Amino acid sequence: MKIIIAPDSFKGSLSAVEAANAVDKGIKKAFPKAETVMLPVADGGEGTLETLVTATKGEIRDLTVIGPLGNEVKSSYGVLGDKKTCVIEMATASGLTLLTDEQLSPLKATTYGTGQLIKQAMDDGFTSFIIAIGGSATNDGGAGMLQALGLKLFNKDGNEIGYGGGELDKIASIEDQSFDSRIKDCNFLIASDVENPLIGPNGASHVFGPQKGASPEMVELLDQNLTHWADHVAELTGIHLHNLPGAGAAGGIGGAFQAFFPCEVKRGIDVVLEHSKFAELLPNTDLVITGEGKVDGQTASGKTPLGVAQTAKKQDVPTIIIAGSIGDGIEVLHEFGVISIHSIISQPMTLKESITNAAKLLEQSAEQVIRTYYHFRHQNNQTNSHIATNGLHST
Amino acid sequence: MKIIIAPDSFKGSLSAVEAANAVDKGIKKAFPKAETVMLPVADGGEGTLETLVTATKGEIRDLTVIGPLGNEVKSSYGVLGDKKTCVIEMATASGLTLLTDEQLSPLKATTYGTGQLIKQAMDDGFTSFIIAIGGSATNDGGAGMLQALGLKLFNKDGNEIGYGGGELDKIASIEDQSFDSRIKDCNFLIASDVENPLIGPNGASHVFGPQKGASPEMVELLDQNLTHWADHVAELTGIHLHNLPGAGAAGGIGGAFQAFFPCEVKRGIDVVLEHSKFAELLPNTDLVITGEGKVDGQTASGKTPLGVAQTAKKQDVPTIIIAGSIGDGIEVLHEFGVISIHSIISQPMTLKESITNAAKLLEQSAEQVIRTYYHFRHQNNQTNSHIATNGLHST
Repeated sequence: MKIIIAPDSFKGSLSAVEAANAVDKGIKKAFPKAETVMLPVADGGEGTLETLVTATKGEIRDLTVIGPLGNEVKSSYGVLGDKKTCVIEMATASGLTLLTDEQLSPLKATTYGTGQLIKQAMDDGFTSFIIAIGGSATNDGGAGMLQALGLKLFNKDGNEIGYGGGELDKIASIEDQSFDSRIKDCNFLIASDVENPLIGPNGASHVFGPQKGASPEMVELLDQNLTHWADHVAELTGIHLHNLPGAGAAGGIGGAFQAFFPCEVKRGIDVVLEHSKFAELLPNTDLVITGEGKVDGQTASGKTPLGVAQTAKKQDVPTIIIAGSIGDGIEVLHEFGVISIHSIISQPMTLKESITNAAKLLEQSAEQVIRTYYHFRHQNNQTNSHIATNGLHST
Repeated sequence: MKIIIAPDSFKGSLSAVEAANAVDKGIKKAFPKAETVMLPVADGGEGTLETLVTATKGEIRDLTVIGPLGNEVKSSYGVLGDKKTCVIEMATASGLTLLTDEQLSPLKATTYGTGQLIKQAMDDGFTSFIIAIGGSATNDGGAGMLQALGLKLFNKDGNEIGYGGGELDKIASIEDQSFDSRIKDCNFLIASDVENPLIGPNGASHVFGPQKGASPEMVELLDQNLTHWADHVAELTGIHLHNLPGAGAAGGIGGAFQAFFPCEVKRGIDVVLEHSKFAELLPNTDLVITGEGKVDGQTASGKTPLGVAQTAKKQDVPTIIIAGSIGDGIEVLHEFGVISIHSIISQPMTLKESITNAAKLLEQSAEQVIRTYYHFRHQNNQTNSHIATNGLHST
């Protein structure tokens, strides 16, 4: 009985590591001798650094960088267990969770801190990077990150412009002579599920601007500024980010990577599963349990549980999802190796109650799900012996 | 794949029949070819008549009787599929559900209508009775029922007393000459889980009076009146109901049966399971699904899911409970053949939302539970063939 426990975080209540612990407790209550493998996962957003470092037994290195609003924040980068790969979670330097709702300021928010993380990691000798770009508070096209790495953005008076998407229209020229020359010798794996272009109605500003605090007027302004930015980038690099798929990820930092970095873009969960060597753990596994805060029909478009189930299915290992909340349209998930979906909610309760008691509820649900799942196996073992005996007798 | 679906009602939202239908739909969504047997059950309270008639393909006969407050109510009795056994649900004539909260009146409420049901059934030729006594609104010691069947309760002036527990202290003498003589030639199986005595701190008035609308003063008065009633019954019959276990059931009607009827008392769920021939359906059954509105540690003290699981366990058939709400202390249920307990609640919601959507939620939960339960079986079938083949090859 080998079970891999691979949940995402339950947003607002449990980190992926905490969720995995709760599931493990529940399984052990049902079957104390069960063999469990804890593999908390993430989709490239918040928690990616922690889960990758945990899964590979790597380490976390703390440093202070410029946060989204220009003040210093405590951030960190991770080193995977191979001691070679550096993982950077953009959200720890330039993320929404660093700000209160009142502080949201998409015209000013900068990705400068993310650039500082990359610079420091290169200073520390790393050349191989995983960059998780979910959860950003920014809409600056990645200009701040590039500034931190030496790119000069001049206004018409020849002075450098300030930080944030609201400044981009002031760019009169870009100068890349002092842009960090080590970058071209590094490799960057960008973990991103976003395929939006940089500008236009499906672009960064229109689609993701509002959740970063942009009013309709700000959205228009930001979209115009990103257009201006993309024009200058095209002039410098020959790369037209305007309609490039994925360039609109994380306020346009997706485009900055594509124009200025040697990079490859992969779905977040796939990056996490690949680097935590999920596939190599699957042989001889009975069951994978994954989960996240909310599961519904949208989960089929690339969220963590789907990535887990798809990978497990390739080796014929079934996946059960345990979710905080089950929405509509889950039927489609059965096509991707998900055998069933259960909720942690044990009785009518408020969202707040479910968040407060999430660990206990998840533990109880996991226990009951495992009891249901393995009952047949116990019968089965008996049945198998029985058949085997009959078989011998009939010879 | 044979599954028996044997839920109780989900109080306030689904009858047992509706609950069974929802579970059946869910199972069929997961496995359209599954063989299901619908056996809605009840614990001797509300719904017992319907479930027994449904399970045995019997019939329901309507009649009008005196309700708990003396006005006429539409009631009914059931005839089981054997066409010999009459089932009477006391609650349909003298039950709480016939009254609003404001109408609750334990001093006045009478069991007269229950007596009328018995009388009519005897007039119709029945001699074998199941009497389900849960959910009564009465605290009259069963005096009303006995009055309906001819027992005379006189006051000191030689006039018959009125209805309800508030009248019992007026009894000066009891006369049984016109008490229906057919009763002694009938047999009565009383479905009751209550073991309380008639009077005292654990008696009918103190324990069940308050939920029937009795104030503390009314509880004292009712307890005194039942004592007076028990004294007179003892004088007439030689049977002392005062401390007799079970005499306090349903406002004391339990005692009336023990003193005046040839009767046997059994746990409600056992009566239902026995007469719906649950045990005879169990051979070749993979799984029993039961459920009710709320399941917790108390469920182990004789509620429907426990009775179902215990009976199934005797034939090594596992039981899964699906509940509206899971409370504390469910671990103990695993000792009685319950392999797991799942909730229908799929996300944070109010009790009202869960009640409104109960059928849909139960259907979805049943589908997912069955997917989880049978996944191994599908693997198992493959494994078995494999082993069988190996066995043959090895000969």
